[in-house]
Amino acid sequence: MRNVIVIGIGATPINEHWQLSLRELAGEAGLAAMHDAGLSTVESIYVGNMMSGSANHQQHLGSYIGDWLGLKFNEAVRIEAACSSSAAAFRSALIAVASGQVDSAMAIGVEKMTDSPGSEITAELATAADADWEGDHGVSFVALNALVMQRYMHEYGWKHEHFANFSINAHQNALHNPLARFHSALTFEKYENASMVADPIQLFDASPMGDGAAAILIAAEDAVLTTSKDRIRVLGSAAATDSIAVHGRKDPLWLSAAEKSAKQAYAQAGVTPQDIDLFEYHDAFTIMASLSLEASGFAERGQAPRLALDGAILPGGRIPVATRGGLKARGHPVGATGMYQIFEVIQQLRREAGQNQIENANIGMAQNIGGSGSNIITHIFGRA
Amino acid sequence: MRNVIVIGIGATPINEHWQLSLRELAGEAGLAAMHDAGLSTVESIYVGNMMSGSANHQQHLGSYIGDWLGLKFNEAVRIEAACSSSAAAFRSALIAVASGQVDSAMAIGVEKMTDSPGSEITAELATAADADWEGDHGVSFVALNALVMQRYMHEYGWKHEHFANFSINAHQNALHNPLARFHSALTFEKYENASMVADPIQLFDASPMGDGAAAILIAAEDAVLTTSKDRIRVLGSAAATDSIAVHGRKDPLWLSAAEKSAKQAYAQAGVTPQDIDLFEYHDAFTIMASLSLEASGFAERGQAPRLALDGAILPGGRIPVATRGGLKARGHPVGATGMYQIFEVIQQLRREAGQNQIENANIGMAQNIGGSGSNIITHIFGRA
Repeated sequence: MRNVIVIGIGATPINEHWQLSLRELAGEAGLAAMHDAGLSTVESIYVGNMMSGSANHQQHLGSYIGDWLGLKFNEAVRIEAACSSSAAAFRSALIAVASGQVDSAMAIGVEKMTDSPGSEITAELATAADADWEGDHGVSFVALNALVMQRYMHEYGWKHEHFANFSINAHQNALHNPLARFHSALTFEKYENASMVADPIQLFDASPMGDGAAAILIAAEDAVLTTSKDRIRVLGSAAATDSIAVHGRKDPLWLSAAEKSAKQAYAQAGVTPQDIDLFEYHDAFTIMASLSLEASGFAERGQAPRLALDGAILPGGRIPVATRGGLKARGHPVGATGMYQIFEVIQQLRREAGQNQIENANIGMAQNIGGSGSNIITHIFGRA
Repeated sequence: MRNVIVIGIGATPINEHWQLSLRELAGEAGLAAMHDAGLSTVESIYVGNMMSGSANHQQHLGSYIGDWLGLKFNEAVRIEAACSSSAAAFRSALIAVASGQVDSAMAIGVEKMTDSPGSEITAELATAADADWEGDHGVSFVALNALVMQRYMHEYGWKHEHFANFSINAHQNALHNPLARFHSALTFEKYENASMVADPIQLFDASPMGDGAAAILIAAEDAVLTTSKDRIRVLGSAAATDSIAVHGRKDPLWLSAAEKSAKQAYAQAGVTPQDIDLFEYHDAFTIMASLSLEASGFAERGQAPRLALDGAILPGGRIPVATRGGLKARGHPVGATGMYQIFEVIQQLRREAGQNQIENANIGMAQNIGGSGSNIITHIFGRA
């Protein structure tokens, strides 16, 4: 397999983009990545998206987006793995380039959620869970996460307030991210007094939906002669699955697919968790932030809230997370989220993260979680 | 890239499977392929499916199907490229194995369409077209094909009756295919007197929807010590795209993506159209059958109906097509169709096609078309 480097990145702000079509959103992100790379064409595209068929009455996004870009491709497909669609799409692009199928490929994550009523989107999101054994009983995604969080608090003795810093850190970091959904600081009081969504999940434990698109253009390192940007290499890429229904897992408080994919990615990159300078994790809910940190080797089982309490997750801390706001405050356009995570890791490693820049960021990790932990994909990047 | 061989195949009948869930359909096909290969596990799965999110309220099919099979995977994603979803999924599996990411992978195509009213499915199918410029104007897929067929007949002087043998041959071949949707012979009179759908497309120019699943299990040739079945090698695999909207093409009567992908596949396999012993083409409509034959090099521009008229497409002819019934009579469960095509090519090359067996079938081709020609994927297989 050939070494692969990131040569272009692009993204739109995450917002309610009622004035832009799905194609325009994806096209703008793709075009920005091509401009960033100084390229006017690309061989193949892989689109990460979850719900365009129902929310936007448009499937077949490969050639659809190609039209907007004025391009034809070797390959142009959509990859769907619920909330992990974008990391899966990036991995498809990566394998195509690393294997020599093509010399360059672009992965575009896009989701347009705010044209539909919230209730419809809640039902759409539930299609990421087990329709027969979860969805059909009316269990929404926030309810599934609430069940897990309830058990986690019971098992390890944490209270709701102990999760506050995950969200406060995210909102703080988003303040200086022009693409973020929210630009408002969160206080402990606001966090604790927020309305209840599904006990114990309150409003500020949950990430917001939104419309947005991000694109990453990659190429075989040996095929790229010059780039004006710092070369960022893909050091590790691994995916793993678990049972789709939470009740199907031996231990619902342990993300075994996160552990498996993270360990494989560490091995490929030749690093340990201690070498990771920043971690764009999948904080769809504060409980997911905790479980991801533990399964990825940053905290002992049941101890992730301690990283939030002692400041380890802050920009200057031992393992900075959600450095541009995370799902919580940058926003969570589900099928596009994984691409924003990679976009942000690349920004950090290129030292282009502005006021959010993590000092001496040399190795960064992104982890994208599909469903309530059934598809988990981990990527590690490093300065070449 | 490593040589890849097909080691297992499985499929369900195409029918109205109201008693089976999407998961059961896909699981049964996958399990049959694993039994066929003599394997009890597989490393990764790639699911080809178009409309499960809306038609079945279930996305995230990788881990969903994995649960039924009792398996966890390295990778389990859904690939969507409208009607070409399954060939795209097979290609993803192929690249994963050929590149050495994994030693074995399974591609499963599944679609469950008959739980929803026909009008809803017609709207679903239209999401494969350009929502902004085709779908929103109420142009259905049959209407798009009717426009193309009308122009084709005008341009080259063919009448509706000249397309009859495409459908008659398909129905004849399906008679002996136990998995086929239809087991009824079609006469010329019945073809010509059928009800009009969208002028000039009458009922028997169009393929039927249905529920079904097919699975193909592949492995790196150097990783497979013994198989009880004939070894069938993947000789060529190529994809290409064109503009999603028909009006965006310079020549709406020429499938440039079919030409491009077929030429690449021929070059990879080191063969010419004359070497192809059978062709599972994408006869969603008789006009698509014609355009596919021409762009793939089996007929001159505008002359494909001649192949139907002179018997070249029959089992004993120069280029047998739809040897188990094709989309027209085996059925067209859209996101699964491409996998049925490959399943049938493998059956032929293994000499397991029963009364439909093409004599001395050594090299077979399958071509899967997404939308009205915007994503086209060609595969060539040969006896090892």
